[in-house]
This record gives sequence, structure tokens and C-alpha cells, in this order.
Amino acid sequence: MEQAASEASGPLRDAILYLVQSGGKRLRPALTIAAGKSYPVDEEKLIYLATAVELLHTATLVHDDVIDGALLRRGNPTLNARWNVGATVLAGDYIFAKAAVYSTLTDHPAVVRLFAHTLSIICNGELVQMFKYYDLDQTKEEYYDRIYAKTASLFSASTELGAMLAGAPEEERLAWREFGYYLGMAFQIVDDVLDFIGDERVLGKPVGSDLRQGTITLPIFYYLERGGDPLVITRVFNERDEEAKGEALKEAIEAVRTSGAVRDALDEAGEFVQKALAILTRVPHTPYREALQQITTYVVERTH
Amino acid sequence: MEQAASEASGPLRDAILYLVQSGGKRLRPALTIAAGKSYPVDEEKLIYLATAVELLHTATLVHDDVIDGALLRRGNPTLNARWNVGATVLAGDYIFAKAAVYSTLTDHPAVVRLFAHTLSIICNGELVQMFKYYDLDQTKEEYYDRIYAKTASLFSASTELGAMLAGAPEEERLAWREFGYYLGMAFQIVDDVLDFIGDERVLGKPVGSDLRQGTITLPIFYYLERGGDPLVITRVFNERDEEAKGEALKEAIEAVRTSGAVRDALDEAGEFVQKALAILTRVPHTPYREALQQITTYVVERTH
Repeated sequence: MEQAASEASGPLRDAILYLVQSGGKRLRPALTIAAGKSYPVDEEKLIYLATAVELLHTATLVHDDVIDGALLRRGNPTLNARWNVGATVLAGDYIFAKAAVYSTLTDHPAVVRLFAHTLSIICNGELVQMFKYYDLDQTKEEYYDRIYAKTASLFSASTELGAMLAGAPEEERLAWREFGYYLGMAFQIVDDVLDFIGDERVLGKPVGSDLRQGTITLPIFYYLERGGDPLVITRVFNERDEEAKGEALKEAIEAVRTSGAVRDALDEAGEFVQKALAILTRVPHTPYREALQQITTYVVERTH
Repeated sequence: MEQAASEASGPLRDAILYLVQSGGKRLRPALTIAAGKSYPVDEEKLIYLATAVELLHTATLVHDDVIDGALLRRGNPTLNARWNVGATVLAGDYIFAKAAVYSTLTDHPAVVRLFAHTLSIICNGELVQMFKYYDLDQTKEEYYDRIYAKTASLFSASTELGAMLAGAPEEERLAWREFGYYLGMAFQIVDDVLDFIGDERVLGKPVGSDLRQGTITLPIFYYLERGGDPLVITRVFNERDEEAKGEALKEAIEAVRTSGAVRDALDEAGEFVQKALAILTRVPHTPYREALQQITTYVVERTH
């Protein structure tokens, strides 16, 4: 990934290195590599593809942080906190472009097409999310659509792309896609739960960030289903005074935490994990598949 | 291009239709089509490619307007003026993604690769431009690099891509690239001149926008070369009071206009046009080539 910075101008190069070096789990490229290496595959092209996947993810994070005005990610200041909005937008665009360039190095039109299509799903999904801020009337279906677009679409593409590049049989390629989908759904639900129960030092960002910005996630649906008071949530949205908003946020987090909603959401993530593990039996039995089983189990146990 | 909106969610669909319907010269896709149709070519794929080129251009404009905080473009409110920054950034991302998807419909890996590479040049160039705001010490070479990245790279890609898709012989493909390059350089210089001498009603945006935001363009280089007072320019940058800044801007525009710098810059654009026309003799003699000759001449005569 450091290579992606090499052609860029000075400040942009520094920014990309900063982003690439500030960590992350590298889960998505790991998925691509595991799926690809389950077959005989051109390893160089597989690395290009995995790089493209991680850069695409990085670019969406850069723009997310602009959009949310987030100042911390993974415990480090966001690019946004160091640069102005314009420069950050352009840095994200540049990383998108580099991601696309890496995807084309596979010389595989269907791979490039799925890659670009996935980007369009992600962007559309983020926009839908934005128009649903502060909206307690949305359905759980809308939540699933949103986390599919935001997260599961790229997980699903990460595995399918690896298999596609390696020329996996049609049926297995579809199994890879489905596996990535279920894993991504579980991953995002856990992410949404961690926003309520995570440790800020481990998370690297403030707890309650989603709720503060008006994003309705699965624990809130379950909180309301269990008869929780909606006013506890809407107070967070409606308070203008920063201190009062902070207090309302603490109370809302506590209310959701103690309502059993967190357990409900984690159970549901667990169901997605079970589905993901079941589908893995349909792909070749290799050490990569075993590694993926471990990653899948890790997803619901992780603390950041 | 309306098709690009069809899969998008409600507000995004409206935004894309608004952008696509608010006009523009469609010069870049015309270049792609003219270059492609100079040979026997798959017309459907050529249309996809031309669509990709125009969408790429549209996406960069959307992000430019976020970055500049511009409220008017082509006489209409920018998306930026109607939506918040976040939504506008995402709309631009979505249009980038759709552009990439259309490019992949050509099923031509080298085409897709050049397309993605061009996007990375444009973004890098915009960032360089941003870091050169208010900097009167930059060289004219830096200006040329910037307008190449910002404009000529996409013009050049527009023609080369059309020829590449059509399987033009190597030498002709390079001639198309060069033609697009010279045309794009001329086009951008004229754009920069129009920022000094254009009619606001015809331009669809305020005169002096570049100078106001600190972008140093060719007329300013010539103004300084002709012994113009740099303080007239820096006053625009340094004034904090909006009214005083407006006055300084008017004076600076007047000073540049009357210095002969506009003539110098237009002469230089004319030289690029001559080079472009000379190169056209190296591509097949068809009605498309004749149309391109007219377009090339139009570029220096246009008023918006």
C-alpha cells in the first residue's frame, strides 16, 4: 500500500503514508487473499486486488471522517483534523483513483466492474444513511439495507473478487459472495454494538459517536422493541447545549446497555456468523478456509 | 447520462438529474466519440466510454465546488449550495463510481486503466493547486503542470481513450493523445482568461473567482512579467474585509486587463491551438476530424 503514495505530490504522499501506517485490521484484503489463494491464482494480481480493496476502504474512511467531522480514528487524529475539508476530500478522491488503478492491474474486466459497482453501492448507501439521521421511524429493514451498503457490500465483494480473479467455479464464487455478506453483516452489527459498550481507549474513538450524529443502529431498535422510552434517544438529538447533549448521550447509552438490547443485537450478529460458517463448507477445504473460520469467530468476540 | 441516476436513492437521483440537466458543453465526450468514430468501432461501448468521461468530469466539478465553496456554476446554484458538504462529497463519490462502472462496460482493460489513472492525475493536480494558493513565487512551469493535471489530462485521455477503444494504430493513438493535450491546454488558458474578461451573465459565475480564491493563472504571470505591481494582486489575498476585498479584486482585474497580459495569454492559447490543428493531420481524414478542427478553433473564440 505504501506504493500508492509514490506518485503523489509531497503533502499528499505524506497524508497517504500517514493513513496507511495508522493501522487497521486489514480484514478486507485478508478476505480477498484467502478466497483467491483457495485456488491456483496469479499471486501478483491477487496482491494488486487486495491492495485495491484496502485502498477503497481507506478512501471511504477519509470521506466519512470529513462528513462526520470526526477528529479521531483508530486513536489517531483523522486527516480531517490535520487538513482542511477540501484537501481531505481530494486526498480521498486520489485514494479512490489509486484503488481503481490497482483493480485494473488485474487485467480482469469482470473484477474491475464488480469493484467499481461496489463503490457505487457504498456511496449510495452512505447517502441514504445521511438522509435517515435522527429518524426513529425507520424500519429494521432499512437498517439492514444500510449496513449492507456501508459494510457488507465490500466484505462480500472482497471475497467474491478474490474467487473471481482465481477463476473459481460459478457456484463457489457465489458461496464466497454470500460468506462475505454474512460476515460483513455480523461485523457491522458488532461495530454498532461496540459504539455502546466499547472501551474508548481500545476503540480509539469516543463511545456513542453514532448516536450523537443521529445514526440509528440495531441496539436502538431492540431497545425500543423492549419498550424503551424513545424520549431518552430523541433527547440526545434535540439538546442544543453541548454539555446537556453529553449528559443525554450518557443516559441513553446506559439505558440501551441495561435494556438487554445489546444482548439481542449480539445474538443476531451470532446468527449471521453461524450462516457465514455454514457457507464456508461450500468452498475448498484449505488452510485459508480454516483461517477464515477463525476470523469469522473473532468478528463477534472482538473489542475494537 | 440520465441512466447513471437510475439505481440511486431518491435524493441522490434528483441531484444527479439536476447536475446532468444543468448543461455544459459536453466537449469531452464529443472528443471521445469523434476519436472513436474515426475508425470502425463498437458504438455501444463508445457511448459507455463517452458517458464515463463526462461523468468523471461532472464528479470533479461537484467536488471542486465543495472545495471552493462555490455557489454558482453555469448560472445555476451548485449542489453544494443546496445540500450540505457531506451529502455533496458523497454525491461526487457516487458519480465517480458510476463513471468507473461505465468505463468497465467497454470490457477493455487498457481503457479502464487509463481512465482510472487519469482520475488520479486530476486529483493529485487539484491538491497541488490547493497548496499553491496565494503563492506568487511559483513558476510558469508549475502553472502548466497544474492545468495539465486539472484539464489537459482529461482532454488528452478523452481523445486517446476513444482511439484506444477503436483499436487505432499505436502512432495514431499517440497523435490523438497529443491533440487532446494541446486542445486541453488551450481550453484551460482561455478559461483562465475568461475569469478576467468574461461577461458574468454568459459565464454563469462571478468574474475574478480564481483570483479571489488565490489561484494564480497565466494572465497574472504575464501581468507581472510586463512589470505590473504585485501588490495589486496580493492586496486581494490579504484584505480581510469583504467589501475592501471586492474593491481590490475589481482593481486587480482592471490592472491585468489593461496591461496587455490578456493578449499575451490568448496568444499563447492560440499557439496551443495551432499545435493541436497540426497534429490533426496525423489522424484519419473523416468528417469527425473536420468537426474537431472547428471545435479546436472555437476553443479560443468562445465567451464561456
